[in-house]
Amino acid sequence: MASLFIKSRSRIFHGHDWVMAYEVDHASGDPNPGDVVMLKDLKNRVLGSGIYNPNSLIIARRISRRKQKLNEDFFRRRIERAIDHRTSSPIDPRYCRLVWSESDGLPGLIVDRYGDHLVVQTTTLAMDQHLDIITKVLVELVEPQSIIERNDAPIRRAEGLEERNGVLFGTDPGEVTIEINGITFTTHLLGGQKTGFYLDQIDSYAAVAKLAEGKRVLDCFTNQGGFALACANAGATSVKAIDISEPDIERAKKNAEANGLSEQIEWVAGNVFNYLKAATKDIDDDGNPTEQYDMIILDPPSFTKNRKTLPNAMRGYKEIHLRALKLLAPGGLLVTYSCSHHVSRSEYLEMINGAAVDAKRNLRLLESHGQRPDHPIILGIPETEYLKGFVLEAIASW
Amino acid sequence: MASLFIKSRSRIFHGHDWVMAYEVDHASGDPNPGDVVMLKDLKNRVLGSGIYNPNSLIIARRISRRKQKLNEDFFRRRIERAIDHRTSSPIDPRYCRLVWSESDGLPGLIVDRYGDHLVVQTTTLAMDQHLDIITKVLVELVEPQSIIERNDAPIRRAEGLEERNGVLFGTDPGEVTIEINGITFTTHLLGGQKTGFYLDQIDSYAAVAKLAEGKRVLDCFTNQGGFALACANAGATSVKAIDISEPDIERAKKNAEANGLSEQIEWVAGNVFNYLKAATKDIDDDGNPTEQYDMIILDPPSFTKNRKTLPNAMRGYKEIHLRALKLLAPGGLLVTYSCSHHVSRSEYLEMINGAAVDAKRNLRLLESHGQRPDHPIILGIPETEYLKGFVLEAIASW
Repeated sequence: MASLFIKSRSRIFHGHDWVMAYEVDHASGDPNPGDVVMLKDLKNRVLGSGIYNPNSLIIARRISRRKQKLNEDFFRRRIERAIDHRTSSPIDPRYCRLVWSESDGLPGLIVDRYGDHLVVQTTTLAMDQHLDIITKVLVELVEPQSIIERNDAPIRRAEGLEERNGVLFGTDPGEVTIEINGITFTTHLLGGQKTGFYLDQIDSYAAVAKLAEGKRVLDCFTNQGGFALACANAGATSVKAIDISEPDIERAKKNAEANGLSEQIEWVAGNVFNYLKAATKDIDDDGNPTEQYDMIILDPPSFTKNRKTLPNAMRGYKEIHLRALKLLAPGGLLVTYSCSHHVSRSEYLEMINGAAVDAKRNLRLLESHGQRPDHPIILGIPETEYLKGFVLEAIASW
Repeated sequence: MASLFIKSRSRIFHGHDWVMAYEVDHASGDPNPGDVVMLKDLKNRVLGSGIYNPNSLIIARRISRRKQKLNEDFFRRRIERAIDHRTSSPIDPRYCRLVWSESDGLPGLIVDRYGDHLVVQTTTLAMDQHLDIITKVLVELVEPQSIIERNDAPIRRAEGLEERNGVLFGTDPGEVTIEINGITFTTHLLGGQKTGFYLDQIDSYAAVAKLAEGKRVLDCFTNQGGFALACANAGATSVKAIDISEPDIERAKKNAEANGLSEQIEWVAGNVFNYLKAATKDIDDDGNPTEQYDMIILDPPSFTKNRKTLPNAMRGYKEIHLRALKLLAPGGLLVTYSCSHHVSRSEYLEMINGAAVDAKRNLRLLESHGQRPDHPIILGIPETEYLKGFVLEAIASW
């Protein structure tokens, strides 16, 4: 088997499973793209087996600390283990991310479960090459009605893979209805604009809804309407939900209708920054904003994909937090999430504190939210940690 | 009213409520120790009211952003609010920290509730001077059987206060039995070695117990036996619990007897470092440690009270984590807490990862624990954040 000899001080010596191209000292043998290679230190000691792709900056990803082939038995054991982890966790294993890449020892394989249907993504060459075995094993272990391939993520280009969608097993189910915390959502797994319904915030929807009764709620970046619908269903007196995507707002609206929640929710297709800016400037005679909320939810998309643009991202985050705080009634709740791996928990809290100082509000942390067990964090791979959320009370001025 | 004029760039301008002696530019008027003073910036703008103690490094602590007297009405409103916060939180308000200092806008006042009994601590001069009003208000609002004063914390010396214990209301209840998650604990609120039962880990006991069924558990730094009893009660096959304090072990043993859990738990009075060291050296013929556990809990006391001794503390943390990982069976759970404000979440996780690399274990984060709602974190006052905990799975080698 071909080997990569890895320079000292590379991340793999600190528990990471990635080998960057510039971390390779030299190679032996002539591996093909997608092959398993042995990973070794400069003293020829084995660090494990990795999947190889010379066309990617991440030239190898460790799949085992021992010798390991990419055969059916391997995929069955790993996928079985991933399923066991979800089944033994306090989540509904019928609606979850069933396999999450490095976190389940299958770098580049993502499998989402929507009830009887699975959606598969492969973002590494080796996983892509083994899609037939993966499909076979998933059929055996999960017995789904269909398996959809959603390989239209641009990230595939980094591995030299083309974009591709299709049906791997069964037939295209068309519109699929899923039930999350007592609310139904309709989504297209294959034909839709995006990969169905985001599963990673399901627990947050429930946690926030518990606090929403009797409150006037503003849901910013509502996307598929997850928070808006959950809050309306939990007894919020009013909900306003904003998103820049008209198709998303249309989709969310239909979900509201299907759940009999149309009356409580006002949908706005628009830019959140502009909306908040205008609302903070619309002041009544007492100097208070005309629009006031008891709960404001900020669940923006990632403002940055790398450390370089982080300062810009932090300015963006601070602006929406500052404006939201100005629209928050005394004692109101600010609910805020960051899904960027590049923004650390402490940086994010510091930014929020900065906004609170500027807004002259005193914030008390009521709850911290994180990744649900279907998006497990591997300690040695910091990239597996991305989602953090906070429920903050704007203490009525003391 | 006397005023302190505070230098620019002081922490109060970043949302903090403390004024350090070296942050005061000048004063006007002649305040007495314990008085309320106005806090102002150098342009004479009001920053709020603070309680003053020239004998403390923290010369003033803000109690309000406006003008505010320390009268009965003030204490009633603040304590009422603190109680409301606990009552509306998902905790048992009969066993909790009812008032927590800065986090409840009452810097230096701590009130713990043990069912019908309250334990009060005052760690600032101003609160100490108003103990009679505080007692009166607590009697009216909580209607307790007794209020105990436990003012033997050395921290009082920083404010020039003597150590003092006693009964503020009712009579000394002697031994008090409390019930936490279905387990009874007996404690002395007044006469005991320490301030009764620590309340801040109650939720962690329950969360960890949920994972303990059928497991061999090692509980390090067991203190009052909170984790050990909860795990035994939840069906752990065996529990070994270690603490250096013989009186604590004796007390925990009695609690085990009272709950009919004596058979499952082995108590060890001894040094955790030494114990783990010896256990990792006791190796069988296959090179595995003779003692192996499916769950190891590390809940040490704070290893550092300041940033200066942090490197030492981190070395201590790493040593126990490394040794614990060596005693953990494949797939076992490492449960670990840090109660030091000076150790950040990311520093702590990094240290654990370092131990995992040395132990050649792959760790997956299953749960993050933090402060329960009776120990609220104020975003502008980082000192209010101290407790972080993690449940980590040592993934059976892949």
